[in-house]
Amino acid sequence: MMNPTASPGPAVSTLYLSAPEAAELIRRKGLIQCMAGIAANIREDFRRWPEFDKSARVANHSRDGVIELMPIADDVSYSFKYVNGHPKNHRRGLPTVMAFGVLADVDTGSPQLLSELTLTTAMRTAAMSVVAAQQVARKNSRTMALIGNGAQSDFQALAFKEGMDIEEVRLYDVDREATKKLAANLQGSGLRVILCSSTAEAVNGADIVTTVTADKTSATILTPDMIEPGMHINAVGGDCPGKTELHPDVLRMAKVFVEYTPQTRIEGDIQQMPADFAVTELWEVLTGAQQGRTSDEQVTVFDSVGFALEDFSALRFMRDTALALGVGERITLIPEMADPKDLYGALRQPAGLAGAGLDAFGAASVPVAAVR
Amino acid sequence: MMNPTASPGPAVSTLYLSAPEAAELIRRKGLIQCMAGIAANIREDFRRWPEFDKSARVANHSRDGVIELMPIADDVSYSFKYVNGHPKNHRRGLPTVMAFGVLADVDTGSPQLLSELTLTTAMRTAAMSVVAAQQVARKNSRTMALIGNGAQSDFQALAFKEGMDIEEVRLYDVDREATKKLAANLQGSGLRVILCSSTAEAVNGADIVTTVTADKTSATILTPDMIEPGMHINAVGGDCPGKTELHPDVLRMAKVFVEYTPQTRIEGDIQQMPADFAVTELWEVLTGAQQGRTSDEQVTVFDSVGFALEDFSALRFMRDTALALGVGERITLIPEMADPKDLYGALRQPAGLAGAGLDAFGAASVPVAAVR
Repeated sequence: MMNPTASPGPAVSTLYLSAPEAAELIRRKGLIQCMAGIAANIREDFRRWPEFDKSARVANHSRDGVIELMPIADDVSYSFKYVNGHPKNHRRGLPTVMAFGVLADVDTGSPQLLSELTLTTAMRTAAMSVVAAQQVARKNSRTMALIGNGAQSDFQALAFKEGMDIEEVRLYDVDREATKKLAANLQGSGLRVILCSSTAEAVNGADIVTTVTADKTSATILTPDMIEPGMHINAVGGDCPGKTELHPDVLRMAKVFVEYTPQTRIEGDIQQMPADFAVTELWEVLTGAQQGRTSDEQVTVFDSVGFALEDFSALRFMRDTALALGVGERITLIPEMADPKDLYGALRQPAGLAGAGLDAFGAASVPVAAVR
Repeated sequence: MMNPTASPGPAVSTLYLSAPEAAELIRRKGLIQCMAGIAANIREDFRRWPEFDKSARVANHSRDGVIELMPIADDVSYSFKYVNGHPKNHRRGLPTVMAFGVLADVDTGSPQLLSELTLTTAMRTAAMSVVAAQQVARKNSRTMALIGNGAQSDFQALAFKEGMDIEEVRLYDVDREATKKLAANLQGSGLRVILCSSTAEAVNGADIVTTVTADKTSATILTPDMIEPGMHINAVGGDCPGKTELHPDVLRMAKVFVEYTPQTRIEGDIQQMPADFAVTELWEVLTGAQQGRTSDEQVTVFDSVGFALEDFSALRFMRDTALALGVGERITLIPEMADPKDLYGALRQPAGLAGAGLDAFGAASVPVAAVR
């Protein structure tokens, strides 16, 4: 037992990355390098899939949206993400998706990193899409339709340019201003950008179709008549109960790949299908245990919902990069305690301040029966 | 659609309460007043129990401990707590239990408050124990045995003095130094403090027995021979699978009260009992729908495990008190965005800095095939 008057014991110091600091990190490292680094971590972590303690995320649904917690752990690290989905938020000037998360030490439970994850989620979602496409899309894919041109779309376009050698993106959104925003952001990226006036026009002739729409409804963005042999569909927007993007017949004509089956059956486009609808988990394709695409004519679907392991991979990347670049600050989320069994002692005045050494609670602050 | 060159839109500003700031808040408000305020919120929130979207907490177990997430929401607010339990942490100078949490806006998903919850959990656990005891312990209870004299015990002793008019505490811990720490902290509190050399000695003649031991084992702290008619047992330490404190026969001879039955059947001392073992949920006693104690001779047990709603109540208290006292700071966990559909735009250099107006990613930062 340590002496209670000794200096504070080993403090738990948590690295904090605010949104502006994460933006600075991304600017300094480069967006593409960040997405590449996260993709590398995702591949590494997915290949050791059985080592993780996995569960479907916990969702609290409300009238206009959902708030979710996504925990996962291996023997060394634990992570969770807080993320919301509120499609009407843009009317208030707020993002549809906001997120933050924590990386912690499994041995002690100490939080090591608290990070913004709004920007990071956009990067990791695009990185995951590319990891999947590299496994199951045709290697000679050069054009991508992008249906839904909101916050996630820029990241998808840039990641696919680099990771899949996409040369042309064909944009469509019901909100014309969103499409203009995306086209403006892609100027100078090297991508040929085509503005389309319907989903069908954008999808026509595309090798890859990425759907990233936001409405929390059972939408039918893609219908069977739009699908061409050999197409890869990167279905990102259908990601919670009652929120889908693909006509069921599109799923029936395709080989469907998922992240974590128990979660995708609840949240993905396959929520429309029977519980025994055949799917292949991507980690098994990455390890070589399962085949990806089996012919150039096959239609493939990545029914992406976003799994906790991707955030674990992304948090690892953000921690390592923040430490390497010296970005972020240290915060005291956990009390410093001279004696870990004396939490009450942590309430005393810090040494050096007026009143140091006195008990924190004088008689005047303890009125009788105040707890009643 | 806002002009992308306009000033940033309404930012999500999160109030942050670090551990030192929470300690300052508690010193300024008074520990007893804080526990009283949290108890009042707990009573208020438990009485409107059906309005909450509840679930058992999500636990990731590892060799030496557990990390848990505890979400809950009503129509207005959402909260979650991150909390670990690592009984061996004190050997490294770290607390057994460390926690932090968030209060968020259900309408938009915006995080409103990020707060330390290590100190706050200690207060809310003691406040919950008093709320329960006020409902089901004998009104003329004056002595309390405290078995387990670690970080939580000081808070229990002080809360019961004020909330139940406890006059004498009888202390026992296998770690004699922990007992000395507790006795020293209770000097001047007005409590008569008796140091005991065994659980049986401490429990003998006590009106209330509080067990707050930390070992993650199926311990048998209280056996039937120790139990006297009319005793109230405040069983706080048995709170996860494989971690119990009461002999099953103690449960059989008592009327048992719980917070949230589905969670307590997994985590509480009643994990030792059949799934149909009769329990009463405290919220129903608080609303008057169920009876509490029915005679002075009845033995009552509060099989406390800690439920998310208590943290919701505590976070509300910390937010309101922090705002009233002007404690805490504002952090930018969520990116500021001029256009909520233009997350990519949040990566541009902030206005006023060198390079403002330039695209964040020059050609040099986009190496070909970096995502591969």
